[in-house]
Amino acid sequence: MGEFALLARLFHSQGVDDGLTEVANGDDASVHTLPAGESLVVSSDSALEEVHWPRGFDLQQAADRALQAALSDLAAMGAVARWCWVALMAQGAEALEAMGRGVLRGAARSGVVVAGGDSVRAATNGLTVTVAGTLPSGTAMCRGGAKVGDGVWLFGAVGLAAAGLRQWRQGERSGAWIDAFARVNARLAEGVALRAMGVRCCIDVSDGLVQDAGHLAEAGGVRLLLTLDALPQVAALSAAWDDALDLVISGGEDYALLCCAEPQLEGRLAGLGGVRIGAVAAGAGVEVRYRGRRVEAKRGFDHFAARG
Amino acid sequence: MGEFALLARLFHSQGVDDGLTEVANGDDASVHTLPAGESLVVSSDSALEEVHWPRGFDLQQAADRALQAALSDLAAMGAVARWCWVALMAQGAEALEAMGRGVLRGAARSGVVVAGGDSVRAATNGLTVTVAGTLPSGTAMCRGGAKVGDGVWLFGAVGLAAAGLRQWRQGERSGAWIDAFARVNARLAEGVALRAMGVRCCIDVSDGLVQDAGHLAEAGGVRLLLTLDALPQVAALSAAWDDALDLVISGGEDYALLCCAEPQLEGRLAGLGGVRIGAVAAGAGVEVRYRGRRVEAKRGFDHFAARG
Repeated sequence: MGEFALLARLFHSQGVDDGLTEVANGDDASVHTLPAGESLVVSSDSALEEVHWPRGFDLQQAADRALQAALSDLAAMGAVARWCWVALMAQGAEALEAMGRGVLRGAARSGVVVAGGDSVRAATNGLTVTVAGTLPSGTAMCRGGAKVGDGVWLFGAVGLAAAGLRQWRQGERSGAWIDAFARVNARLAEGVALRAMGVRCCIDVSDGLVQDAGHLAEAGGVRLLLTLDALPQVAALSAAWDDALDLVISGGEDYALLCCAEPQLEGRLAGLGGVRIGAVAAGAGVEVRYRGRRVEAKRGFDHFAARG
Repeated sequence: MGEFALLARLFHSQGVDDGLTEVANGDDASVHTLPAGESLVVSSDSALEEVHWPRGFDLQQAADRALQAALSDLAAMGAVARWCWVALMAQGAEALEAMGRGVLRGAARSGVVVAGGDSVRAATNGLTVTVAGTLPSGTAMCRGGAKVGDGVWLFGAVGLAAAGLRQWRQGERSGAWIDAFARVNARLAEGVALRAMGVRCCIDVSDGLVQDAGHLAEAGGVRLLLTLDALPQVAALSAAWDDALDLVISGGEDYALLCCAEPQLEGRLAGLGGVRIGAVAAGAGVEVRYRGRRVEAKRGFDHFAARG
């Protein structure tokens, strides 16, 4: 079966009835209208075998999580996720189909329309996922919105995905931490709720808690004071490894949301499942404490710095 | 220099003042508003070394043409190109920078804002380019709009890029045909003009004239009768190779535009530089003639069928 037939079977058969899409798969481009008064929010991310997931990892799951990782960027902005376009790079037809099915599965779970696809035979399996959503103009949560006095809130666990990936590399194939790596769900509902309650500073924790907190500090011209005491992950991971703190502060790929919000929102943030892990102060950089002691922050993963 | 610094230097420094972009590079996603009454048009395509360009080909040029190839899809819809997001896959920092610079160069030439980027170290150099444009809602040129009696019009040469790629593989490094492969310019102005004059059926010729004409025939439920006599490329290529007709009808990567339009538009289409190469008839499929004789149509390139 040729490329076109494969993609047609996977994608073209998807009915698109979101009320906003004029043209989808099967033409040169897709065409969409935006809800009145809303802005477009777009992000594009690649995920490659042996970089973003280990060789041997289920390709359907890998593509599903690649989509969710991209959607996590929309969650961080507070956008309603609407469409995705998927460029599949596959070693063969079987890998192509597995990744295509993974994207469709993840898209269905998140209510996102697969609006376009491209495929190419490649030496390494991978995919680039571009996602788009919408939000009321002028309400996007950005990295630079932190203000001195804000609380710092975390939605979702950190460190568990890195723990699961480590277990996978040690030969484990199931368990809660491996699931934390494999089964990602972008926190779209939380992102929309945060934006709707007026939060204007947020990032998704993809590169590690301290590195991503550093992005908020730098963009906002502030200092983030974090304490890990409220995070149950530290104790849980400490039972398995000595470097549990490292996993929690530097382990990436969890796709939690980290936001800075005014103190009066505290009740609503806690009600949404958030954990307060710090405060915004004057200054620069990120300071992390656990049980009263400073924790040295390692940098998160950087594809080019780490191995370049 | 790490991934973030590299991308920052290449992309974040680009000032974005298109009047429509609220947030660009450096946040989790970019945020844009659309002109009133306009729809969003999006396409995403990958280009990989050794598939879309030969190893040893200048990476800056390769990335430039990858962007133009993606923009060609917007041209085919009649959209005004506005933004692109680039996922770079690079063997190292040097390749990353070369491809990044190529994208910036191509984007500047086409008046497109680079709104976001991602990069990853990969075994093979490549990039996925997602492009977006806008057009008045309801005016997109689609594949399925051909009507019996329409003329079939070609904007741009076909076959020369395939000829140039063949020369390159034979050791040539310069010349008009190699330029036809290397220096792609999406026909955005023609696309916008066609859409504005009321044309509603168009495709870009990326996979080969006959294959792409076949997409129009299939989507429109019509038969396309093409004649190559008006194309100077046949004679030009015949001076070099016996299979010149094959190159013209099956060679891809030229990014010409092929449209079907009502007869009364003939004068305006010719004034825009179009060449009438056929007519739309009842039936199905594509029939090609040259000097009064039927030409057998080979299929265009299919990454998975050709080698799968």
